[in-house]
Amino acid sequence: MSSAAAGMAPVPEPSPELLQRAAGVRRSAMALGQWSDAERRAAVQAMASALESDRHKILAANQADMETAAADGLTPALMARLKLDGAKLDAAISGVRQVAALADPLGRRQLHTELDQGLVLERLTVPLGVVGVIFEARPDAAIQIASLAIRSGNGAILKGGREASRSCAAIMAALRQGLAKGIPQTIPAPDPIADDLAVSNTSATKPLANNPLPPIPVAMDSAAGDLMAASALELLTSREESLALLKLDGLVDLIIPRGSNALVRYIQDNTRIPVLGHADGICHLYVDAAADLDQALRVAIDAKTQYPAACNAIETLLVHEQIAPSFLAMAIEAFGAAGVELRGDAAALALGVEHAASEEDWSSEYSDLVLAVKLVADLDAAIEHIGRYGSRHTDAICTTDDQAANRFLAAVDSAGVYLNCSTRFADGFRYGFGAEVGISTQTLPPRGPVGLEGLVTYRYRLRGEGHIAADYASGARQFSHRALPL
Amino acid sequence: MSSAAAGMAPVPEPSPELLQRAAGVRRSAMALGQWSDAERRAAVQAMASALESDRHKILAANQADMETAAADGLTPALMARLKLDGAKLDAAISGVRQVAALADPLGRRQLHTELDQGLVLERLTVPLGVVGVIFEARPDAAIQIASLAIRSGNGAILKGGREASRSCAAIMAALRQGLAKGIPQTIPAPDPIADDLAVSNTSATKPLANNPLPPIPVAMDSAAGDLMAASALELLTSREESLALLKLDGLVDLIIPRGSNALVRYIQDNTRIPVLGHADGICHLYVDAAADLDQALRVAIDAKTQYPAACNAIETLLVHEQIAPSFLAMAIEAFGAAGVELRGDAAALALGVEHAASEEDWSSEYSDLVLAVKLVADLDAAIEHIGRYGSRHTDAICTTDDQAANRFLAAVDSAGVYLNCSTRFADGFRYGFGAEVGISTQTLPPRGPVGLEGLVTYRYRLRGEGHIAADYASGARQFSHRALPL
Repeated sequence: MSSAAAGMAPVPEPSPELLQRAAGVRRSAMALGQWSDAERRAAVQAMASALESDRHKILAANQADMETAAADGLTPALMARLKLDGAKLDAAISGVRQVAALADPLGRRQLHTELDQGLVLERLTVPLGVVGVIFEARPDAAIQIASLAIRSGNGAILKGGREASRSCAAIMAALRQGLAKGIPQTIPAPDPIADDLAVSNTSATKPLANNPLPPIPVAMDSAAGDLMAASALELLTSREESLALLKLDGLVDLIIPRGSNALVRYIQDNTRIPVLGHADGICHLYVDAAADLDQALRVAIDAKTQYPAACNAIETLLVHEQIAPSFLAMAIEAFGAAGVELRGDAAALALGVEHAASEEDWSSEYSDLVLAVKLVADLDAAIEHIGRYGSRHTDAICTTDDQAANRFLAAVDSAGVYLNCSTRFADGFRYGFGAEVGISTQTLPPRGPVGLEGLVTYRYRLRGEGHIAADYASGARQFSHRALPL
Repeated sequence: MSSAAAGMAPVPEPSPELLQRAAGVRRSAMALGQWSDAERRAAVQAMASALESDRHKILAANQADMETAAADGLTPALMARLKLDGAKLDAAISGVRQVAALADPLGRRQLHTELDQGLVLERLTVPLGVVGVIFEARPDAAIQIASLAIRSGNGAILKGGREASRSCAAIMAALRQGLAKGIPQTIPAPDPIADDLAVSNTSATKPLANNPLPPIPVAMDSAAGDLMAASALELLTSREESLALLKLDGLVDLIIPRGSNALVRYIQDNTRIPVLGHADGICHLYVDAAADLDQALRVAIDAKTQYPAACNAIETLLVHEQIAPSFLAMAIEAFGAAGVELRGDAAALALGVEHAASEEDWSSEYSDLVLAVKLVADLDAAIEHIGRYGSRHTDAICTTDDQAANRFLAAVDSAGVYLNCSTRFADGFRYGFGAEVGISTQTLPPRGPVGLEGLVTYRYRLRGEGHIAADYASGARQFSHRALPL
C-alpha cells in the first residue's frame, strides 16, 4: 500500500464551497456541450497556445517541485513521473494540438432504426458531463485529460499529487486562460437548464444521489461568459477536497484515477461514481521456443528500459526452457549493460541470473530497472503465469510459430495482447487516439488506452406520431425494426 | 428503503463452496467463449426448446410461488412482476429464439489501424466472462439474461428473489438441460487456460482481487462435457450466497441488479465489480402548450396504464398551464375510467384533480395506478422538474412545436428522450435488441435498454515484426496511423 492510500480514510462529506465549485463546473460543462465542433476545436487550440506562452513559467514551477521532491527523498520512479522538462512539455502541447485536430466525437449516430412506420429510434453520442481526475505525480496527465475533456464537451475537476502542486497550478492557469480566450464569439446565454441540473443534485430524494446535499446558490453573471467557460476546468488543491470528490455523484459522472494500485483500489471502494480503472501494469513478455532470439532481446530491452516508470513496461520475462540457455546468455549481458537487475527463479539462477526472485516478485510492479525472470516448460505454462499474476494490462509473445502466436493472442485475456513488439506501444498516442485519459484494466469498455471515446456516452431519441405500446401488445401493430442509414 | 436492502448488511465472505462453483462457471464460460457462432446459436435454441418442454412444470412452479406470495401479502405491484402466465412465458421463449437469431456479437473488428509498416492494431469484441445477476421477483428476467449470456459466450450466476424461488429453480433446470443438449458434437477439450484463470483469482497478490481467496480445487472430468457446459449457468439459492457474490471480483466481471432502487444502491456500495445500474424509473411525460391533446392523452394513458409495474411507466405528468384546463378536463375523466388515482399540485387541484401531491410524490416510483400531476409555466420549468426529480431513465414530450421538441430532446439528459410516443417503448425487445439484460440509468455506456452489446467487451491485438518504442521516441521511425478496412 502506498502511503497516499494508507492515510486516506474516511471520506469526508463535500464542503458547501466544493459543492458550489462542482456545480459551477457542471453548469459550464452543460454550456460547453452545446458548443459546435469548430468552437470546441478552437478552444483546445487556444489552450495549446496558452501552454506555449506560459512554457517558462510551467517549467520553472516543475523545477521547483522537483527540488522539493529531491529534498523530500522521493523515489527515482516517482521523480521520473514528476519531471516535466522541455521535451515532455512540448510533446504534451503537441498532443493537445492533435486532440484539437481529432474528429468530433459528439453527435455521431450509432444506431438508426425504424421501429414501425413513423416511429424512429436513433442513438447519438453526447458528452458524459463532468469527469473527476485524481493523479499522483505526473503533471502532464493534467494537460492530456483537460484537452480531451474540452474537445468532447465535458468539464473536468482535477486533483494532482501534492508533490506536483506548483506544476499543476501553473498548467491549470494556462489551460483556463486558453479556454477563456477560446470562447466562441457567440457566447451561449447562461443556460437555465445547466443551472437546474446542477441544482437538481441538491435534492434529498434524487434517486442515485449519495446523500442529501444542501441547496447550492448558483450565481449567474451573464457578462462573465469567459469566466464561465474557464470554470469548466477546476483544480482541487487540498487533500480533503480530493477525497470529497468521491462523494459528488450526481455532479461528477466518471472518476479517473491515475496513480498507484492502492489509490485505485481505495477510490473503487469509496465512491458510487464509475471509476475508469488505471491499475498498475504487471506486463509480461514471453519468449517462445520458436522466437527470433535477436528480435526478442531487442523487444525485451525496449519493453523494460525505454521508460521503466511507465505502467506498460514489462515486469516479468517468461522464457521457454528450450531456448533459455542461449537466450539468457545474451540477455544477462544486455540487461547488465542497460543497468537492469534481473531476479530469477531457480532455473534462471542456474543459467547465470544473479539475484533470486521471491514469490512477491511475480506480482510486483517495479517501475524501475528491475526485471523478474522465469523459465516455463511451454506456452500453456506462460499463459497460466500471466493469468495468475498479470493485471490484464498488456502482455506480449515473441515467436515465429503462428499456432503459438494465435493461441497466446486468443487465450490471454488482457486489454492488449501483442505479438513480436514491445508492450510500450500500449498508449493512446501510439494507438492514434491523439492522447489518453488513462489505461483501463477492467473488463468492460472502455478498456486499454482510452481516448476521446471514453469521455462520450450516448442517448436514445425516439420520435413518434402518437405511438403507444398497447397497440403492439395487442397485436394491432407489429414492429418492423428496419435498419435505416446511419 | 425496501426491506430487502435494509436487512442486507454486512456482506459475508464467499464460502469455499461458492468460490468453487463460481470458478466452475468461469471455467465453463471460458470454454463457451471458444464455441463458434453456430454452436452458441444452437445452444440457445436448445434452451428455448427445453423451456417449451418444461412449460407446464414452470407454470405450476410459478403458480405455487404466487399462492405463497398471496398468503404472505405481497403488494399488487410485486405480484404483477412475479406472475408468469402462459402468455408471458411464451413471449419469453419467443425472446430466446430471437436472441438465438441475432447476429453474433463476438469477433467483430471495431478498429483496424496500421500504426507503422508491419505494425498492425486491431480491436476485436470478446465475451465479458461471467455476469452476476441479482433480481427481485420477475422470473422471466432469468430467461432473458441467461439466453443473452450464452449467445454472447458468457457464463451467468443468477440469484432470484425468495418469492420466485420455485419459478427460478424450474426455469434454471430447463435452461441447464437445454444448454447441456445444445453442446456441440466437437466438445472442446477441458481447457487448461480456463482452469488457470479460475485458479489465478486465488492469488493473494492479484492486483484487483478483493481479498486473498483460498485455493480452489478444480476437478476436471473430461467425460463430463455436457455437465461442464451446463455449469456456465448457476442459480444461487441462499441469501448469504447472493451477498457473497458481490465479493467475487476476479471471478465475476459485471453485476446486473434488477430490482428496487435500494437494492441497486446497496450493491453499488458493496462491490468493486462494475454494476449495470437498473435503478427505478421516475419517468415523465410533458404535455406542451402546442400538443395535440387527443394524441397526448392517448400517449399518457398508455405510458401509465399499459403495465404500471414496469420501470418505464410514467410517474409524473407535467402539463403546460396554458392547455391545462382543457387537457385536464379530458384527462381526469379518462384516468378515472382507467382506475388511475391522480395526485396534483395546487394548480392541478384547482382544475379538478382530486388528491393532493406532497413533495415526496415527485420522486416516487408508484409501480401502480397512481400518477402525480403538476402544472408548469413553460418548457424550461418542465425540463427543470425532470432534471431535479427524474432518474435519467426515459422522459417524453408531446408537442407539435418543432423548436420545443428539439430543445427538450437536446436538454433532457436521460438515457431515452422521446417525442410524441409512450415511454413504454424503452425496452430491449421494442428497440430490436431481441431481449435485454436490463436498463441502465448510469451515464456511461451501456446506457438505456442493454442487449447483447452490454455483455461484450473488446481486446486490442497488436502484431509487429520486432517493433520497439525507442525507435519512435528517437524519431528514427514515425507512426503512420493509417486506417485499414474493418
